[in-house]
Amino acid sequence: MPRYKLDIEYDGTPFIGWQMQEDGASVQGLLTAAVAKFSGEMVAVQGAGRTDAGVHALGQVAHVDLARDWATDTVRDAVNAHVGPERIAVLVAERVADEFDARFSAVRRHYLYRLSERRSPLTVDQHRAWRVGVPLDVDSMHAAAEALVGKHDFTTFRSSECQAKSPVKTLDRLAVSRQDAEVHVRASARSFLHNQVRSMVGTLKKVGEGKWPAGAVAAALEARDRARSGPVAPPDGLYLLAVEY
Amino acid sequence: MPRYKLDIEYDGTPFIGWQMQEDGASVQGLLTAAVAKFSGEMVAVQGAGRTDAGVHALGQVAHVDLARDWATDTVRDAVNAHVGPERIAVLVAERVADEFDARFSAVRRHYLYRLSERRSPLTVDQHRAWRVGVPLDVDSMHAAAEALVGKHDFTTFRSSECQAKSPVKTLDRLAVSRQDAEVHVRASARSFLHNQVRSMVGTLKKVGEGKWPAGAVAAALEARDRARSGPVAPPDGLYLLAVEY
Repeated sequence: MPRYKLDIEYDGTPFIGWQMQEDGASVQGLLTAAVAKFSGEMVAVQGAGRTDAGVHALGQVAHVDLARDWATDTVRDAVNAHVGPERIAVLVAERVADEFDARFSAVRRHYLYRLSERRSPLTVDQHRAWRVGVPLDVDSMHAAAEALVGKHDFTTFRSSECQAKSPVKTLDRLAVSRQDAEVHVRASARSFLHNQVRSMVGTLKKVGEGKWPAGAVAAALEARDRARSGPVAPPDGLYLLAVEY
Repeated sequence: MPRYKLDIEYDGTPFIGWQMQEDGASVQGLLTAAVAKFSGEMVAVQGAGRTDAGVHALGQVAHVDLARDWATDTVRDAVNAHVGPERIAVLVAERVADEFDARFSAVRRHYLYRLSERRSPLTVDQHRAWRVGVPLDVDSMHAAAEALVGKHDFTTFRSSECQAKSPVKTLDRLAVSRQDAEVHVRASARSFLHNQVRSMVGTLKKVGEGKWPAGAVAAALEARDRARSGPVAPPDGLYLLAVEY
């Protein structure tokens, strides 16, 4: 059966997250239903990563096996037509080898987190960034972030619901920079623990607003204690940017 | 009575436009109600320009007269608190002289129009750009746009509902450029006719997709005939960027 790779974008605001669950609209569920409508086949679309409720994706990747050998542009356009008015879009569909697996073949995942320092409510960017409402010290945030790069036990920044076998991960990049009127955090790794990016961002925000010294982040990491993490940042500002294979 | 100048941002998607009307939620109506809630005074907020239904603003300007001498940060925060969950925000409030009039003191208005060439539906940018779905020839669009810059009779690009006394306006800037994966049109003038920016953008899009030769835009302008305009571009991509005084 031909395997198709889908590059997918979505506004996570209205969804319970990527993964199909018993209740609520999930991105995976809506895509799977759209595939069934055009192909007549009910086969689950398999994603590279499970984004949480409210988290966005500009470059989620998934694969799906269909019995028929469709033109890839037909797959893209038909899924988009059947997914309806939902804020989900297939950007590219392509044929891949049977060995390709959206989740297990991935070698690196890239996330972006957008923070807004402004005091006034967000309007066109509502649900698209975390409005922290105070000025952030970007240099201190970046210095603190550098202590997290590398291979570490990330227990401190791991959700209690995380199902990963090991808390040890290698963080390839964690960079904080100013972009126009926002502060951006960029994180890259082969894989992340559940809530890891949002926990790290919530912790770095404490440094940015001057409530934690930069050194406290490295100390929190070394403590391997969930209670030492800063608060988990809200999903609004988080984007799965791209998945590398 | 102290006069306050307000810099205002809004997502125009849910609104019938800037202006208060008998039915529907308007930006002016919601701001006026918010001012009344915190100050106890029912006095209409006066804007620099009347944006249409669905048109956004990153830099609308308005003024309002209040009996009491409030701290400007209090005005900003109180209006934001009372305007509620609506996608409207006061960015800055400041005291201005009684001679300042948001509409009549304005010397230049700046608009941005965002077009997306991509074929797939917009998700995080839904209602924030016009998805034209085809590649656009930006150089041809820019060349055609240059023919519209200057002092002209813009009857061709004027809504039949336009209430301006004269169709003659001076267009200071109309520039088309590529910005990442989008095409941006920037327009600046002391004032515009009703639907002028959207009519010009709809016409330039015809050039961009190769359906009109670039020279047809100058010919349409010279015809001074509404029937010679391209279609009016949708409001989704239009932003009132700033008002100069």
